[in-house]
Amino acid sequence: MSKTAIIIDTDPGQDDAVAILTALGSAQLEVVGISVVAGNVPLELTAKNARIICEWADRPEVPVYAGCERPLLRPLVTAEHVHGKTGLDGVPLHEPAMPLQPEHAVDFIIRTLREREAGSVTLCMLGPLTNLAMAIVRAPDIVGRIREIVLMGGAYFEGGNITPSAEFNIYVDPDAAATVLACGAAITMLPLDVTHKATASPARIGLLRALPNRAGNLAADIMTTLERFDVQRYGANGAPLHDPTVIAYVLQPGLFSGRKVYVAVEQNSELTLGATPVDWWGVTGKTANVNYLTTVDSDGFFRLLADNLSTLP
Amino acid sequence: MSKTAIIIDTDPGQDDAVAILTALGSAQLEVVGISVVAGNVPLELTAKNARIICEWADRPEVPVYAGCERPLLRPLVTAEHVHGKTGLDGVPLHEPAMPLQPEHAVDFIIRTLREREAGSVTLCMLGPLTNLAMAIVRAPDIVGRIREIVLMGGAYFEGGNITPSAEFNIYVDPDAAATVLACGAAITMLPLDVTHKATASPARIGLLRALPNRAGNLAADIMTTLERFDVQRYGANGAPLHDPTVIAYVLQPGLFSGRKVYVAVEQNSELTLGATPVDWWGVTGKTANVNYLTTVDSDGFFRLLADNLSTLP
Amino acid sequence: MSKTAIIIDTDPGQDDAVAILTALGSAQLEVVGISVVAGNVPLELTAKNARIICEWADRPEVPVYAGCERPLLRPLVTAEHVHGKTGLDGVPLHEPAMPLQPEHAVDFIIRTLREREAGSVTLCMLGPLTNLAMAIVRAPDIVGRIREIVLMGGAYFEGGNITPSAEFNIYVDPDAAATVLACGAAITMLPLDVTHKATASPARIGLLRALPNRAGNLAADIMTTLERFDVQRYGANGAPLHDPTVIAYVLQPGLFSGRKVYVAVEQNSELTLGATPVDWWGVTGKTANVNYLTTVDSDGFFRLLADNLSTLP
Amino acid sequence: MSKTAIIIDTDPGQDDAVAILTALGSAQLEVVGISVVAGNVPLELTAKNARIICEWADRPEVPVYAGCERPLLRPLVTAEHVHGKTGLDGVPLHEPAMPLQPEHAVDFIIRTLREREAGSVTLCMLGPLTNLAMAIVRAPDIVGRIREIVLMGGAYFEGGNITPSAEFNIYVDPDAAATVLACGAAITMLPLDVTHKATASPARIGLLRALPNRAGNLAADIMTTLERFDVQRYGANGAPLHDPTVIAYVLQPGLFSGRKVYVAVEQNSELTLGATPVDWWGVTGKTANVNYLTTVDSDGFFRLLADNLSTLP
Repeated sequence: MSKTAIIIDTDPGQDDAVAILTALGSAQLEVVGISVVAGNVPLELTAKNARIICEWADRPEVPVYAGCERPLLRPLVTAEHVHGKTGLDGVPLHEPAMPLQPEHAVDFIIRTLREREAGSVTLCMLGPLTNLAMAIVRAPDIVGRIREIVLMGGAYFEGGNITPSAEFNIYVDPDAAATVLACGAAITMLPLDVTHKATASPARIGLLRALPNRAGNLAADIMTTLERFDVQRYGANGAPLHDPTVIAYVLQPGLFSGRKVYVAVEQNSELTLGATPVDWWGVTGKTANVNYLTTVDSDGFFRLLADNLSTLP
Repeated sequence: MSKTAIIIDTDPGQDDAVAILTALGSAQLEVVGISVVAGNVPLELTAKNARIICEWADRPEVPVYAGCERPLLRPLVTAEHVHGKTGLDGVPLHEPAMPLQPEHAVDFIIRTLREREAGSVTLCMLGPLTNLAMAIVRAPDIVGRIREIVLMGGAYFEGGNITPSAEFNIYVDPDAAATVLACGAAITMLPLDVTHKATASPARIGLLRALPNRAGNLAADIMTTLERFDVQRYGANGAPLHDPTVIAYVLQPGLFSGRKVYVAVEQNSELTLGATPVDWWGVTGKTANVNYLTTVDSDGFFRLLADNLSTLP
Repeated sequence: MSKTAIIIDTDPGQDDAVAILTALGSAQLEVVGISVVAGNVPLELTAKNARIICEWADRPEVPVYAGCERPLLRPLVTAEHVHGKTGLDGVPLHEPAMPLQPEHAVDFIIRTLREREAGSVTLCMLGPLTNLAMAIVRAPDIVGRIREIVLMGGAYFEGGNITPSAEFNIYVDPDAAATVLACGAAITMLPLDVTHKATASPARIGLLRALPNRAGNLAADIMTTLERFDVQRYGANGAPLHDPTVIAYVLQPGLFSGRKVYVAVEQNSELTLGATPVDWWGVTGKTANVNYLTTVDSDGFFRLLADNLSTLP
Repeated sequence: MSKTAIIIDTDPGQDDAVAILTALGSAQLEVVGISVVAGNVPLELTAKNARIICEWADRPEVPVYAGCERPLLRPLVTAEHVHGKTGLDGVPLHEPAMPLQPEHAVDFIIRTLREREAGSVTLCMLGPLTNLAMAIVRAPDIVGRIREIVLMGGAYFEGGNITPSAEFNIYVDPDAAATVLACGAAITMLPLDVTHKATASPARIGLLRALPNRAGNLAADIMTTLERFDVQRYGANGAPLHDPTVIAYVLQPGLFSGRKVYVAVEQNSELTLGATPVDWWGVTGKTANVNYLTTVDSDGFFRLLADNLSTLP
């Protein structure tokens, strides 16, 4: 069976790290490259962290490309209050030896989609959608060549996590998000509505901690740190694990369920900026543009993580 | 024990009818008057329906005042698709004999709050908030004399019911809603987040149907009609019963729970018009302006309805 | 020849004072009443100033009605930087002996339009449009009974005077302005585009100063004070005289010219709040709703003021 | 004296053509390259027209780069009603022999600014600002290396030309315009307020027609075509000549005057989208970001055009 080619666009970020490790550990996936963007922390750090993560997995040959250091239109908002000053607080960090690629991430995305067979590359979007939106504005022809965009972002039944209305990834660059959601490609969204059900309970963290390798322990350490931040809000069930759901969906979509719906992005109001109203009941008459996921088999999800992380050093 | 003085401001409306009957049946409440507004159906019909409902309860002495026939700034949106062309579809209607009061509803609200002891009158708001907002703009001094505003409206954890973002009462007059939420009086909101848990299941409808009087049967007939509309969305649990929760809260607040939070109203974006983002996690730094209810003892709620309806003819 | 019945709705205000005096001095006009609103200064002061002005004209029988003390939706913005703390800086003020009417200004407007022959009453709007918008929301039937709404407000070819985009009267209550412009009555607007051409040059002020009565001298004193504020912007030509153009237009429309156009009001953007974009070239396809005046015979205008002021004490 | 290095970013477009010819005819200017964007007509046509214009000037070595085919966030709006289906109606067009460069216009702008001495390259922006905004988002470091951005766009004292509020170049991509105006580089704007004073009267067209070369006649033909479109609005004075003012300002700034002011761009309201409110009187307290030009020596401007066009074939 041939592997699924993916590009991971990311702003690591603690849960990004677990997602990247999971992808690198999977025999089903070909990680064509990792493009980084400013988001949880500034670009300089996400570019460094992505390479640290590849080295944790002993995969220095995976090319890492730096992308946009700021959103399309608005000042950058970061999330050091969650991810720490480094973006990867809670685990020891080293200076990566592998280089950053000279090509800009936006060019990498465009080039890959044009070079590879049409419909063969899945875009795994773990951060603000700036890089992809820039690629679409610059080269609209790529849209028809995307297999699927699978993105972590948005919230509807759950409230937001950065404001009462908005989830962080969409809030940071709502204009990029709107561009992506309107582009016409196949899109699957993993919003807070589903990631809040994928909580890292002590038992589930224990599953990773029990792995005999470094990757399992790193993932367990990261989740433990995340839990500390979220305990006030999420309590004893543990913190939600957002970004790894994107990789899990690509590997095993049957773990999730949702509905094909119309989703828009609020760009014009300061109060509700970044909100992603979902036409769940089909009242707007707009054509569905998103496969919007709302449920997950959480135990199956964590088993999938453990299985894939177990292949790493 | 002295009665609680209430003004019911309403746009009957099927669930409004059940709410009004419940209030008229309660020995704890003094219904000072009923003010009507355009909402579920145009003003002419809400003004007629309010009087029909009073006559069902054999209470023709309750004064009914006509208020605003249009929202503050926007064209009227109605909900005949739910409530039927009359606003009270599903039950036989008669031509009311009792008169409409000559005084405008806005003047009635202002006069009552000024005449009665400060802090003694509770405003039970069952429709768009136009009348109260008009009263506040015209006579800001009344705000300090309100005991509490208890209103059915808004949605946060649940999606909207008229658009993906908005609940009907707020959507029809978001500008009035914003005026009311910002006024400084004590406010309790009963949003879809709670009313969607107060569903009229067959068993609960049966409780009212079993009452030996006309009021119980009217209420049961109304709920049966409502259920037919909502069955696709809400399924076997029955349709939510919105407006009567306002009266139930005034009578027995212990049936409900919620949180004191900051709630705003979206007025500027067409996409999210009428959304009521709730600062549930206290991230905005804004002072709480609303007691926002999210849970209800549904069986207790229906028993309360049955108890109060049982005293009517 | 029968007189034209007018209601003056106003927030005096220095130029309002000259407008009111001009109207009271005219044998062509029946001033049915003066309704005041918060604007240049708070309501308490505009209610007092209107009566002072009537007493200057020896017309204590003209009824003065207090209206809204705040805009429909937004906090009140005032203009003491122009009109001084009293609203009438630059002339000696006394405590008025004539009473304020007990009726609310909004009720006065509604009652007058309903009692008088349809199409017989002209509304001269010199301040924010709150009172009229409140009357329209409350009693939409009055719109069809208005002869004409003549209002000072807006700006298009000229920039704004309170922000780069907005003229003061519209900016203070853009929601009221939008309600009035959309109401369907005949409307004539006197925007900054015309009032900036009606400047109180020393020669023109001299014309009023030369009148042998008190009214002429009061008007001259007021204009001299206004000029001091505006000299930096308007230079040697003197300050624009805004509100009296409304009365002048009612008395002698031939002094002015303009175009029938579509005018809207910006309500949703903080940046351009209160802007009044004018479809001068007919590109929007919207039906004209306003007679938008842009030129004035300035010398004729000041002669008209002098003629009417000369009849007063 | 060393030449001034300029990049011309353009969407030719009739007046763009006159601007490009003028620049190519000037001994003072080094046209480093021409980057094209979608605007007056789609990108395919602007990319072709720019090369036709270079060939008219016998300058096939000037590199032409294709840029963005759509605005940052919004669907493309074009202006064939002005410029004709080809974008250059009114003059005979040929198939250009010179090639389009393989490099993307955004990369060309970034590379040139990084390669050339800091502060040595002036950007002459004749169309929507998409390419430059994309360059700024992608490579914020270039901002500090720009000598000056000179752009045709915006309107304040004049109304808009595509809507009552907005000038075409800003309206097509208001988000790009806002990005550029906020970037921090030195910016000179040539809005409708100045270009409407640079009208192509018959006498001025005659000046170009009298030139003994092809370029003068092409320019005269183009202006004659433009005049036909605008005659209803502008009458006997001839049509405004917009884009050439940018080149004229770079060559001879003393022809123009204006004021250093704060200018913003309306991005959030449909009604006033693309408006550019100018803080002409310094009331906002915001720091000036633009040298906003409002007057031009029109005869001097047309003489400058004639002088520079006269050097061409």
